[in-house]
Amino acid sequence: MTTRGILVLIALLASAGTRGETVAGATSPGQVLSVQVAIDEGRASYSVQRFGEPVIAPSRLGFLLRNTEKLERNLSLVEQSASSFDQTWEQPWGENRYIRNNYTELRVRFAETIKLKRSFVVVFRVYDDGLGFRYEFPDQPALKDVIIEDELTEFVVVAPATAWWIPGGEWNRYEYLYLKTPLDEVTQAHTPMTIRTDDGLHITLHEAALVDYASMWLRRAEGQRFRAQLAPASEGWKVRRSAPFNTPWRTLQIADSAGGLYESNLILNLNEPNALGDVSWFKPAKYAGVWWEMHLDTSSWATGPRHGATTANAKRQIDFAAENGLRGVLVEGWNIGWDGDWFGNGNNFDFTKATPDFDLEGVAAYARRKGVHLVGHHETGGAVSHYEKQLGPALDLYARLGVDVIKTGYVADAGQAERNDGEVDTDGTEVVKREWHDGQWMSRHHLKVVTEAAKRHIAINPHEPIKDTGLRRTYPNWVTREGARGMEYAAWGNPPNPPEHELNLVFTRMLAGPMDFTPGILSLQGRGQPVQTTLAKQLALYVLIYSPIQMVPDLIENYAKHVDAFQFIKDVPTDWSETHILNGEVGDFVTIARKDRNSEAWYLGSGTDENGRVIEVPLHFLDAKKSYIAEIYRDGAKAHWKTAPFEFVVEERKVSSADTLTIRLAAGGGQAIRFVPVR
Amino acid sequence: MTTRGILVLIALLASAGTRGETVAGATSPGQVLSVQVAIDEGRASYSVQRFGEPVIAPSRLGFLLRNTEKLERNLSLVEQSASSFDQTWEQPWGENRYIRNNYTELRVRFAETIKLKRSFVVVFRVYDDGLGFRYEFPDQPALKDVIIEDELTEFVVVAPATAWWIPGGEWNRYEYLYLKTPLDEVTQAHTPMTIRTDDGLHITLHEAALVDYASMWLRRAEGQRFRAQLAPASEGWKVRRSAPFNTPWRTLQIADSAGGLYESNLILNLNEPNALGDVSWFKPAKYAGVWWEMHLDTSSWATGPRHGATTANAKRQIDFAAENGLRGVLVEGWNIGWDGDWFGNGNNFDFTKATPDFDLEGVAAYARRKGVHLVGHHETGGAVSHYEKQLGPALDLYARLGVDVIKTGYVADAGQAERNDGEVDTDGTEVVKREWHDGQWMSRHHLKVVTEAAKRHIAINPHEPIKDTGLRRTYPNWVTREGARGMEYAAWGNPPNPPEHELNLVFTRMLAGPMDFTPGILSLQGRGQPVQTTLAKQLALYVLIYSPIQMVPDLIENYAKHVDAFQFIKDVPTDWSETHILNGEVGDFVTIARKDRNSEAWYLGSGTDENGRVIEVPLHFLDAKKSYIAEIYRDGAKAHWKTAPFEFVVEERKVSSADTLTIRLAAGGGQAIRFVPVR
Repeated sequence: MTTRGILVLIALLASAGTRGETVAGATSPGQVLSVQVAIDEGRASYSVQRFGEPVIAPSRLGFLLRNTEKLERNLSLVEQSASSFDQTWEQPWGENRYIRNNYTELRVRFAETIKLKRSFVVVFRVYDDGLGFRYEFPDQPALKDVIIEDELTEFVVVAPATAWWIPGGEWNRYEYLYLKTPLDEVTQAHTPMTIRTDDGLHITLHEAALVDYASMWLRRAEGQRFRAQLAPASEGWKVRRSAPFNTPWRTLQIADSAGGLYESNLILNLNEPNALGDVSWFKPAKYAGVWWEMHLDTSSWATGPRHGATTANAKRQIDFAAENGLRGVLVEGWNIGWDGDWFGNGNNFDFTKATPDFDLEGVAAYARRKGVHLVGHHETGGAVSHYEKQLGPALDLYARLGVDVIKTGYVADAGQAERNDGEVDTDGTEVVKREWHDGQWMSRHHLKVVTEAAKRHIAINPHEPIKDTGLRRTYPNWVTREGARGMEYAAWGNPPNPPEHELNLVFTRMLAGPMDFTPGILSLQGRGQPVQTTLAKQLALYVLIYSPIQMVPDLIENYAKHVDAFQFIKDVPTDWSETHILNGEVGDFVTIARKDRNSEAWYLGSGTDENGRVIEVPLHFLDAKKSYIAEIYRDGAKAHWKTAPFEFVVEERKVSSADTLTIRLAAGGGQAIRFVPVR
Repeated sequence: MTTRGILVLIALLASAGTRGETVAGATSPGQVLSVQVAIDEGRASYSVQRFGEPVIAPSRLGFLLRNTEKLERNLSLVEQSASSFDQTWEQPWGENRYIRNNYTELRVRFAETIKLKRSFVVVFRVYDDGLGFRYEFPDQPALKDVIIEDELTEFVVVAPATAWWIPGGEWNRYEYLYLKTPLDEVTQAHTPMTIRTDDGLHITLHEAALVDYASMWLRRAEGQRFRAQLAPASEGWKVRRSAPFNTPWRTLQIADSAGGLYESNLILNLNEPNALGDVSWFKPAKYAGVWWEMHLDTSSWATGPRHGATTANAKRQIDFAAENGLRGVLVEGWNIGWDGDWFGNGNNFDFTKATPDFDLEGVAAYARRKGVHLVGHHETGGAVSHYEKQLGPALDLYARLGVDVIKTGYVADAGQAERNDGEVDTDGTEVVKREWHDGQWMSRHHLKVVTEAAKRHIAINPHEPIKDTGLRRTYPNWVTREGARGMEYAAWGNPPNPPEHELNLVFTRMLAGPMDFTPGILSLQGRGQPVQTTLAKQLALYVLIYSPIQMVPDLIENYAKHVDAFQFIKDVPTDWSETHILNGEVGDFVTIARKDRNSEAWYLGSGTDENGRVIEVPLHFLDAKKSYIAEIYRDGAKAHWKTAPFEFVVEERKVSSADTLTIRLAAGGGQAIRFVPVR
């Protein structure tokens, strides 16, 4: 339902504390947030208030353009309109089946009053729990081929705040430990960046629908004033587009609690609806594979005596998957190109040729007979043009073999991809350009892979990816990705992932979308260093770190040693009809309850950082008309991530929605619960 | 049920990071908290761990004594025993009907190894949500008359923390705005002092069972090291007692959330059981009265044309109370002594003689006929010995008139009471000593009034009192008190109570016990300054600020102007069978649900500081088998404490325990809900 023509009462906004003259404004449906647009000596800005108090101070809008004057001065407001929207839509898979999209939209058109008289539109969508805005560049004589030198969008946070962030524009992509600093000590951050004001307000800055545009980093200009810093193209500019086009949405999720940020659906709502139609061919599922052994360095990706991707090893994983109800099996290192120095040197990869010791056809047939599906693997080593050249045949091969999920990889040197457009230098050598993993060129590449895969009913799971901006709504075969320090850093990271790591992820990286974190290392053992969690926390991660495909990555023999804990991994689904954040603080702890999409069972995960906690959890999310058996997997009385990580108890209790559970989490611990309705 | 003889495994504690040698230890029933006792070169200390991580670093135990050597050095542990205790007891009235008292007790006896060879006992009671410890002085030849010069008990908080506190040892007793500072910037604080570590752990330092002893202030020695600073007696020492005796319990409530602190029953549990027997003669209730008009300065306590306590005015309040189901009527200024400068000059008060314009007997009879009970009033002006001389006859008079609750008052100069033991100077003048409002002498005075009143079935409500340390468990006629900035500061305070005030109170002052805050100023109007809340928040305070007697203090004509809001005040009870803190942060916001002790109705109060908030509140506390009508009193869409405090909506919704309410609180706002089961 869309109601057009809601009149915005500018008079009410005149005293809203904006810089210059307030020329437009809009308020969220529940009168929580409002945005004001002002013009000050020809320069445009926006500001945000919550319950009448300023949250974002007047912040500039505009662009520096190449080969023409900047689009920032001599502006006047020439048109504005407001509307409201309220719709509930259904996800094919996800944390929630139904999502409400309820906002007030404000469209404002600015035009230059002199010279080129160019114009652009800014569209604001104001929700009770956040807002997004984007620029729209209409087709116009003075602005056809647009080269964005810099986007000038600002975000000025009013209240003193603390930030959780990773550095943007660094060599190791998104694979950094989260920093917690005063907001005014951030240098340049990736998004999502989550902040908490001293008043307890939680804000996450991010973007939605990053299509054919450069990623936004947040560069601090001064104090708590941030500017959109776009990832540069190899040509030096940031973005090149032909009008008409839109930028991604710049987003601010704003909530009283950390959980409120997580429960916001702003990012998905700002993306376009499903463009693929029926995607029921994608099956959320768990998968095993030949992977962790390479991170332990007991197997190798390269061929030779330690080669992991042998026919025999793959069949062993297929047997394991079949026995335990896991749909998929990933085999890394199955193809030609891994011998020698492949890291950042991916031009030797052949995406259609298996190594001699890996019978791809035979393994695929064996899997089929066992009811298991191979998960494909395309590591590019950053040689992206090289990969694109083979993309069609590579996808066709997998499609023929029944592979319907592919894990791609971009372990590129310095976080930059190799781009080769066929251009040759004067001396006849190929021109190889370096593109940021999150620049405009890579944003195109990823969507190319996703759309080509979709044609073949294949889902994509990129590692070392571009960040998630909610495009899974439009392309539901872009099912998950990495894009943060995953479990392999527990194996060999220096430092390894600390106990707080996943509690940072939930309220930062996970606000972007699903992550293929690969939890479930029940051995708690990396490469000469322990995993810094308790056993129970490994189980909880299956609920806490959402992904529609979840790996079961530990060595088969390690699951055999923990039959009691492994039962939870066998039971836990990867597709949900409802998700509730029951409590949590950024970087400290969280408890999440999710309902299985395919049954009446509920699952709960709770995890903490290096501090033990006692949390009262009312079970109100359960169906009040049912009784449940709670299968509880918890830390033992003396459990501690450092001194007693294997202290572990499994027990059952009969519970109902009226009960309150006391959840005791050891230092670095967790708890996982399956609630099964009593027939 | 008591299980004696739990063996404490000292070996396990050896590496617990205590100073010196760990000689004893105990762990809470749920293995959450543990305490270790150590001796280091003859000096004793304790430390506290939570989930194996240090919370309180080694902190000294001991005393400086007058006329003898200090009791702190050359100590050895000569005896220890441990036991566990688990019992549920019933309150005659309160926030909860049943309270569980489940702890591990550790008793350690220290003795001097040389010279006087004195000994003392320290008893620790370790709960999952806190601990208390006290000193026991056995009768012994070298320690009979004990004069405590200083208590040397320390509290060394490990993690960097923020504190909410009011200054201890200042002239205006407890009537200060709460300060929020880094813990290492506290100077000297009253208890309860609440702190939150940077890791999110919440700790409240306080004391329990303050009987015949001086109150403890917390003086910061250095960094985050605090020492018990006892309120001094006029003689210069702090406490004088004869052995055997016990000190009050030094308490630490420790919880992951602010709500966890509030839900802790540590303070009540550490007090002795009910010493009065059947106290069903005390009736929790609301009361109206002649009071707010004096704070508005439209009436006076003194006689004359503006005298508030006239027969006619009292009868008007009695009529109002009778019409609206309020049990009590308070009439301040009814007795002789208010003319002239009574502030800190209370020797003119006569507690049995009414002013000529107030027919006490007639008013009492009128009230009886209307089914209303007068609430007595004894203002001392700080002349405490003077009051004690009249105490018997004053109580007898009230008992004869059917007065069963008395509000006492101690508006003393410089926070100190006048004490006159009958001693005269060499020149024949009376010797008047000045005693701290919270010193040992006043602790005796308050208990004398309470026990004398109990004999006559009268309950006591002291204003400008000694702090609450849970003695209502032992003396259930000590029903409430002031002991913080109440609503009168909204009338004339400079500055007035800010929007955050009550949110500070809930997690500091209210951890001590009930407060006669006198909410419900629906006019939102003080003496030339507005009350800094919305209308809805005034209603919420009846749920948020617990007291078994609650005033309905605004002018009668103001309630007539707000008939819709007044309905909630008429409905809300003052005695509860259950209390649940649904969410909250110290100084920011809180939501509390309480169940009426005398019906199946539930009440919810939610309030916020100067920041508006949206809070999701699952109604899990409701009976899952019932449906309810929720009578919702909330802030209107444009409400704001400063600009639109009267924006207010009353609405009804049918709800059940499976529902989740979205509670929208305006800046400085609140919400009150009554849940009535549908028949």
